[in-house]
Amino acid sequence: MGQGHIVAARQPPQALQPGRDHAPPDGAYGARSLSGELTHIGPDGRARMVDVSAKATTAREAVAQGTVRMAPETLKLALSRDTKKGDPLGVAELAGIMGAKKTADLIPLCHPLPLTGVKVEIAPHETETALTVTARVKTAGQTGVEMEALTAVSTACLTLYDMLKAVDKAMVIGGIELIEKTGGKSGDYRKNS
Amino acid sequence: MGQGHIVAARQPPQALQPGRDHAPPDGAYGARSLSGELTHIGPDGRARMVDVSAKATTAREAVAQGTVRMAPETLKLALSRDTKKGDPLGVAELAGIMGAKKTADLIPLCHPLPLTGVKVEIAPHETETALTVTARVKTAGQTGVEMEALTAVSTACLTLYDMLKAVDKAMVIGGIELIEKTGGKSGDYRKNS
Amino acid sequence: MGQGHIVAARQPPQALQPGRDHAPPDGAYGARSLSGELTHIGPDGRARMVDVSAKATTAREAVAQGTVRMAPETLKLALSRDTKKGDPLGVAELAGIMGAKKTADLIPLCHPLPLTGVKVEIAPHETETALTVTARVKTAGQTGVEMEALTAVSTACLTLYDMLKAVDKAMVIGGIELIEKTGGKSGDYRKNS
Amino acid sequence: MGQGHIVAARQPPQALQPGRDHAPPDGAYGARSLSGELTHIGPDGRARMVDVSAKATTAREAVAQGTVRMAPETLKLALSRDTKKGDPLGVAELAGIMGAKKTADLIPLCHPLPLTGVKVEIAPHETETALTVTARVKTAGQTGVEMEALTAVSTACLTLYDMLKAVDKAMVIGGIELIEKTGGKSGDYRKNS
Amino acid sequence: MGQGHIVAARQPPQALQPGRDHAPPDGAYGARSLSGELTHIGPDGRARMVDVSAKATTAREAVAQGTVRMAPETLKLALSRDTKKGDPLGVAELAGIMGAKKTADLIPLCHPLPLTGVKVEIAPHETETALTVTARVKTAGQTGVEMEALTAVSTACLTLYDMLKAVDKAMVIGGIELIEKTGGKSGDYRKNS
Amino acid sequence: MGQGHIVAARQPPQALQPGRDHAPPDGAYGARSLSGELTHIGPDGRARMVDVSAKATTAREAVAQGTVRMAPETLKLALSRDTKKGDPLGVAELAGIMGAKKTADLIPLCHPLPLTGVKVEIAPHETETALTVTARVKTAGQTGVEMEALTAVSTACLTLYDMLKAVDKAMVIGGIELIEKTGGKSGDYRKNS
Repeated sequence: MGQGHIVAARQPPQALQPGRDHAPPDGAYGARSLSGELTHIGPDGRARMVDVSAKATTAREAVAQGTVRMAPETLKLALSRDTKKGDPLGVAELAGIMGAKKTADLIPLCHPLPLTGVKVEIAPHETETALTVTARVKTAGQTGVEMEALTAVSTACLTLYDMLKAVDKAMVIGGIELIEKTGGKSGDYRKNS
Repeated sequence: MGQGHIVAARQPPQALQPGRDHAPPDGAYGARSLSGELTHIGPDGRARMVDVSAKATTAREAVAQGTVRMAPETLKLALSRDTKKGDPLGVAELAGIMGAKKTADLIPLCHPLPLTGVKVEIAPHETETALTVTARVKTAGQTGVEMEALTAVSTACLTLYDMLKAVDKAMVIGGIELIEKTGGKSGDYRKNS
Repeated sequence: MGQGHIVAARQPPQALQPGRDHAPPDGAYGARSLSGELTHIGPDGRARMVDVSAKATTAREAVAQGTVRMAPETLKLALSRDTKKGDPLGVAELAGIMGAKKTADLIPLCHPLPLTGVKVEIAPHETETALTVTARVKTAGQTGVEMEALTAVSTACLTLYDMLKAVDKAMVIGGIELIEKTGGKSGDYRKNS
Repeated sequence: MGQGHIVAARQPPQALQPGRDHAPPDGAYGARSLSGELTHIGPDGRARMVDVSAKATTAREAVAQGTVRMAPETLKLALSRDTKKGDPLGVAELAGIMGAKKTADLIPLCHPLPLTGVKVEIAPHETETALTVTARVKTAGQTGVEMEALTAVSTACLTLYDMLKAVDKAMVIGGIELIEKTGGKSGDYRKNS
Repeated sequence: MGQGHIVAARQPPQALQPGRDHAPPDGAYGARSLSGELTHIGPDGRARMVDVSAKATTAREAVAQGTVRMAPETLKLALSRDTKKGDPLGVAELAGIMGAKKTADLIPLCHPLPLTGVKVEIAPHETETALTVTARVKTAGQTGVEMEALTAVSTACLTLYDMLKAVDKAMVIGGIELIEKTGGKSGDYRKNS
Repeated sequence: MGQGHIVAARQPPQALQPGRDHAPPDGAYGARSLSGELTHIGPDGRARMVDVSAKATTAREAVAQGTVRMAPETLKLALSRDTKKGDPLGVAELAGIMGAKKTADLIPLCHPLPLTGVKVEIAPHETETALTVTARVKTAGQTGVEMEALTAVSTACLTLYDMLKAVDKAMVIGGIELIEKTGGKSGDYRKNS
């Protein structure tokens, strides 16, 4: 296999040296690459799944929201829960929960995580002609579940669109954002009002 | 298995009778259920994958867009294409293409479809401090690809959020909507300006 | 790569010769293997996805049923549609539809097929303390959808168990069978009463 | 995004308050929803992935069984392990193992779990003209693996049907049930003889 | 949503004009992008699923091969078909067939395709201490199945490694290449001897 | 369900007896099967996901490499990072990372594992007209990540082939092997130079 392998065998990557797993995660892949040789050849800004090996496993939770704006008669139909495809809210809530489980499959650099709880709620928006989707996701892991919560919201919004598009193709999905997250080294986050 | 089966065998569902596949699709599952018995027992508004067996296979195309609003310095970083996770735009465009292929897996009642072309483009928004994601999806099928285009946009937006959230958790994904669709019995659609 | 490749290149497999795609499908892989050399070495009874290249694309439909037997109070709870996990019947019907789309991923030798319609209905059994799941699946393809209908029923039954197991672990899933199929060279099938 | 968010920000859901993760899991999502406002609007019996954050990670194991009843000549063919599609028992055992890994993808409200061991065995039934499928699944997790064991059995039964349906479409899958489970707060379970 | 949408609505992409679907596929996405505006902003060399809408649906077939080189005693064990994990050849052949069905999920820009036949055969290499994996894949589609055949071979080789690595970690997977392809506009291909 | 169940209930499998989870993993499924009855009936060499319940959860890491040999002009085109499908190296690196996450779905008997870090680097080979793919995968688990690293390499190589096959169908993927692994009871491994 040529010198590439010989080099790799002769010069064990620093990442494999004792104590490496206690180095700050950001330094793990950011500062150096597999071997000096490759560094000079390899492109910059290469995509990577960030190394979280050194992070503690802690309880983490995230809440995200989003909305689907629609025509008044579409909203009325959605709330009647009886369309040609079935109950839009119930199907979309379930799709959101299942979507949360697919996050690492959808988002290229997301870490696969076990989830300990997922809840998706859809309700009429207080002030707009829209439905509001709220997702809460929990895990005990080494990285957060913001993406799982956002993916649950996004999947539920897409499903609402699919359930209702026969009567309204002009619906707009928007306001998908992180409301709050807790747990993890980076500390808690809460959206500003 | 009791009378349920005997009944089903004695009274072949109308859907299996000659010519049934030429009935209007909407009538296929909407008007009647598997058997009279079940109809009276079964709940209303049951979810279903709408029967498109009678629809023609035609060339279909859909274009969808969405945006991710972010802080000016976040946008500058994104356009530098060099973050801790790699090139946010390139990774998100690829995630969007792959997301389009997962649509039927994510959206409960979507029909699985072959896709003949998918393109996702991310560029700075003309007027806002935001990135605009545009997805175009094509197929030759019995139903449209609006959901594939919207799922591609949504997946690309989520991936942009994931690539940039280390520096900006307040990004907002919005304006996900169908821009135009062509092909199919329901005719073309173009978003109003 | 040695002679293996040279042989393969020198002796094009019969399967690639003109007219091959019009040979009876069963003969396509059954009678001969890639090359004489391999035949003598290779094991018998090797698993294969049967070659359906020569089969016509026709409208195909299948209906399958199954039941989940449970305690009377469990059935009463299920029909109340309000458990700690939500509405068991609605969730299971949706899971059944999504399960049909995963058939080729679950059953090793199933051909991936587009589906043009899927319907799953759950109702109380006429004579037993049980719920009956009925699935109807349609496609236009070169092979039938019996496995898709059976997988939909099976997935819905498993989901009912999951939704209700907190109160009844002794439920039994049974009577999963094909009720009828139509379309395809092998002709129609209807379960004997 | 309107008051919905302001409310959510002003009234942090109780689930996020200190000590919440030590509350009994059943109360976590059962008793209260994200915010008072949503509670009154939201539908009852909403589907949810039950919160197991407060459960201990312990060794858990489950055994499930099921059968496929078939004609005597079909059973003889199956046991010959040489059909047009290959060895039905070997393929079905492998499909069952892989099916166990897909449980959280198939069953909407199942928690994704790592698995530490899966074994599927198919053998002739002692008294019936049938094959018996037995699956044993193990994990170290916060929730049990009953569904993984039942899904493994169900997938293996469906695969047996697929491998043999060319000669016998009247096979019936039945008797899928939990034989025993160990580990977890709810204690051990063993099927009554 | 700003001018981006207005522009898109005012200037329908050429790709949507009459006759577009009869333009050479290579020109479809290669020559022009969604809108002049985006072109100037967008990066070069953007990833895309090549548009095959204008290609004819024809019978296509591909054959690929690869090898796993191993120690003589490892090969002997493999051919005994009895390892701690089971029969390495049988499991790997099945994994290869299932892998072919996952190609569009694994390879970012591959088109999802129905497959009409997949066969994987593993046999001892004629001249090396190795196992040779041969995969043949067929479809009727608008693009070829070279990647499906190569993915089947690759998955089978990885599975052989997994089944045997307890006794030999120094195995080397190699020689994965396309042996021949037939069907499609680009004509037939056969590896040079 | 006949005696099979009665037996199972009357004679709890040894695997469920106290202390079983502290038995050496290899003995867990190797020495005995679910019940004496089944042992005598069941086939030998049955596939199984090896029981790792008794293994410690430790930090584990694996590095694998592979190459894609190609014509000089193909290599030049690849390094120009501008092909009809986009940047081959960037897309393949991302595909490799995502492929690592699909390992347990592709390799039948692999244990599903969380991953704490994945990095894939593609660079020109030092001595051959080829690209070298290097993957490093980390986890904290009860079994190693050799297969994840090998699958990442294999997926990246396949993607390079897909990105470049329009200009060169004679590329050969080879030299896929484990370079080093650390962690776990079986100790460290480093490829001989």
